[in-house]
Amino acid sequence: LSRPSEELTRACRRRQAELSAWLTEQGLFACVVDDFENQRSNSLRWLCGQPTDALLVILASGKSILVPWDINLANERAVADQIVPYTDYKRSFREAVIGVLRESGLPQRVGGPRETDPASDPRPRVAFPARTSHLRYLELSGDLPGALVEVSTPGYESFITEKRNVKDGMEIAATRRAAAITNELVDLLEEIVRGSGDGLREIEVAQIIEREALARGAEGLGFETLAAGPARSWAIHPFPSYSNAPFGAPGLSILDFGVRVDGYTSDVTMTLIRGELSAEQERMVSLVEQAYSAAVGALRIGASCREPALRVEEVFSAAGQRMPHSLGHGIGLDTHESPVLRTQLESSESTFLSGMVFTIEPGLYDPRLGGVRWENDVLLTDAGVTILTQARIVRIP
Amino acid sequence: LSRPSEELTRACRRRQAELSAWLTEQGLFACVVDDFENQRSNSLRWLCGQPTDALLVILASGKSILVPWDINLANERAVADQIVPYTDYKRSFREAVIGVLRESGLPQRVGGPRETDPASDPRPRVAFPARTSHLRYLELSGDLPGALVEVSTPGYESFITEKRNVKDGMEIAATRRAAAITNELVDLLEEIVRGSGDGLREIEVAQIIEREALARGAEGLGFETLAAGPARSWAIHPFPSYSNAPFGAPGLSILDFGVRVDGYTSDVTMTLIRGELSAEQERMVSLVEQAYSAAVGALRIGASCREPALRVEEVFSAAGQRMPHSLGHGIGLDTHESPVLRTQLESSESTFLSGMVFTIEPGLYDPRLGGVRWENDVLLTDAGVTILTQARIVRIP
Repeated sequence: LSRPSEELTRACRRRQAELSAWLTEQGLFACVVDDFENQRSNSLRWLCGQPTDALLVILASGKSILVPWDINLANERAVADQIVPYTDYKRSFREAVIGVLRESGLPQRVGGPRETDPASDPRPRVAFPARTSHLRYLELSGDLPGALVEVSTPGYESFITEKRNVKDGMEIAATRRAAAITNELVDLLEEIVRGSGDGLREIEVAQIIEREALARGAEGLGFETLAAGPARSWAIHPFPSYSNAPFGAPGLSILDFGVRVDGYTSDVTMTLIRGELSAEQERMVSLVEQAYSAAVGALRIGASCREPALRVEEVFSAAGQRMPHSLGHGIGLDTHESPVLRTQLESSESTFLSGMVFTIEPGLYDPRLGGVRWENDVLLTDAGVTILTQARIVRIP
Repeated sequence: LSRPSEELTRACRRRQAELSAWLTEQGLFACVVDDFENQRSNSLRWLCGQPTDALLVILASGKSILVPWDINLANERAVADQIVPYTDYKRSFREAVIGVLRESGLPQRVGGPRETDPASDPRPRVAFPARTSHLRYLELSGDLPGALVEVSTPGYESFITEKRNVKDGMEIAATRRAAAITNELVDLLEEIVRGSGDGLREIEVAQIIEREALARGAEGLGFETLAAGPARSWAIHPFPSYSNAPFGAPGLSILDFGVRVDGYTSDVTMTLIRGELSAEQERMVSLVEQAYSAAVGALRIGASCREPALRVEEVFSAAGQRMPHSLGHGIGLDTHESPVLRTQLESSESTFLSGMVFTIEPGLYDPRLGGVRWENDVLLTDAGVTILTQARIVRIP
């Protein structure tokens, strides 16, 4: 079995140390990061290299304890001070959390009456993910009478998210490799669709992408490819994501895919147009092109992440159209991460920073006409705006 | 656009009516089922046919309101009394829940002092999923002062789970079609690996499965195929799930896949052995074969779902071995659903019922030797035990 690279080891050690320091500052005893079925969190991989299915406890004291479902995978890939197989805790999240915290010196109980005001509660504080269910919260509070169980936002997850929002050199390098493979595939796919008759099918295109990505050294795809021929491109995310239906036939076909390198994904969408479009379809294409340009023109370090989405909304609403999804989102270890580029809610608070990597993906969809989406990946640095990928709207006579 | 079939419409209407009746019995006003990114629930599809990304509110009065992310997909596939686009609520779960409940007659507030004992609280009760986060629970309680927000287990989700545990005729028919395609693929894959030299790769095998499944009318795969050649079969779930590494080369290769038909998945694992094994490897294979037989022999309507897992543990522990995962799990709309076949915890409470469909999948893994797993799907009916699939351990000289 191999072991994690020096570079990954250093990065994980640094991230764990920064998080421990933050826990100390905040007066916390420990925090819990977990990734299991139906409860995924790539912060696990970011912090310790283990790609999936494990519990990680970071102590303010600086120690990290990993409890992996697959001990063999952890021995090969994970960076942690201590690795304990999940089977040692009967493969129970609850038993693992209690066990690790007790073995880390969390008192079993504290004498005297318990305070009801959290601020003056003398017990050590242990922070759990914001997604922790109400029922688990009650359960953990009962299981850990010696601790103050905390679920709050902002909290340590916001600390991690802020760090993950701004990519470091290793992360940008992986993203650039993913983008380079993506660009080769964009060219290849254009060529294949141009050269094909009406016989090409959605699944063939999806399989070419995956095969060619792996052949070029990708770890895999970032997400399930969405390949929708003219009969299905009206769906934002077609269901199923590809089928035996024709692709690249006359009309509007959408192809949305991402390539993952060392965990970091690209995310692009091509629209492939074959033959003459109706005037209404031409109008959709033109609006998406205008929206794309308006969005790219509004990217600026220090500006609100709402700005480009507002520009796009202006373009669409002036034409009586509405986009049924966000304009874009951060990419990285997660396919969808911060920042979110949308007109409403959360994004009003976030600001473009140097080191952010995100998508721009305006689109319009009509059950009669089909869909058009155009998506590329952007890296913001002090040197400016870099469009990393070269997906495009392709016209085939 | 097409519309849901008569058969699916009748099934969804019946399921919604049964749930409404149950809500009435329990004195609940409504319950909420949702499926969004990071919060998936195939109970959405089971109740209304919408495969993904929507909020469904079922009222005790009998009414169902669906709020889909993709309105076009819902118009084609969903069965509900009312369908309202998510964009009408600014694509916010919180606004959608509040909006739908208010429009359904939930009072905005109730006069007089609020009771602290839930049992005597006069407000209408609205039930949310057990996975509802502690933070969302607090938020909803504030947003809906006129309601008593409930998150409890057992609750309506247990009611749904119990119904989903026992498959009806339409569900069994879909599962049988998935199994039939799976069996054709098992034969095909054995033939391909037998006929291949050392040049076959994991991704080729994975792509053949998907292509051939779709060509035979499958909706897609049940989950990402796990294809691990001899260098990686030691992992329970190899990461990534397939790569450019050799498959079917000398030693132990594992192939775990499922085929989905109308939402219902199969789930099988073949182990492919090429060439002479070491004595230690032979011992692993033999133990897994013994465990498989012991498990199948312990299947009996009315018996505890722990029984087969206990029989397998006896086989393995007598040989000083331990299986790092459960013996099996229910399959259906979810790849992993009830019942769980394991020696510990929850499963101690569940009992084999007529109409259950689940896997049996003993396995052993060693970082030096590789892995062996053998998995098939079982249908229990009053007529007896039916092994639906024919995956096997294949020996190639």
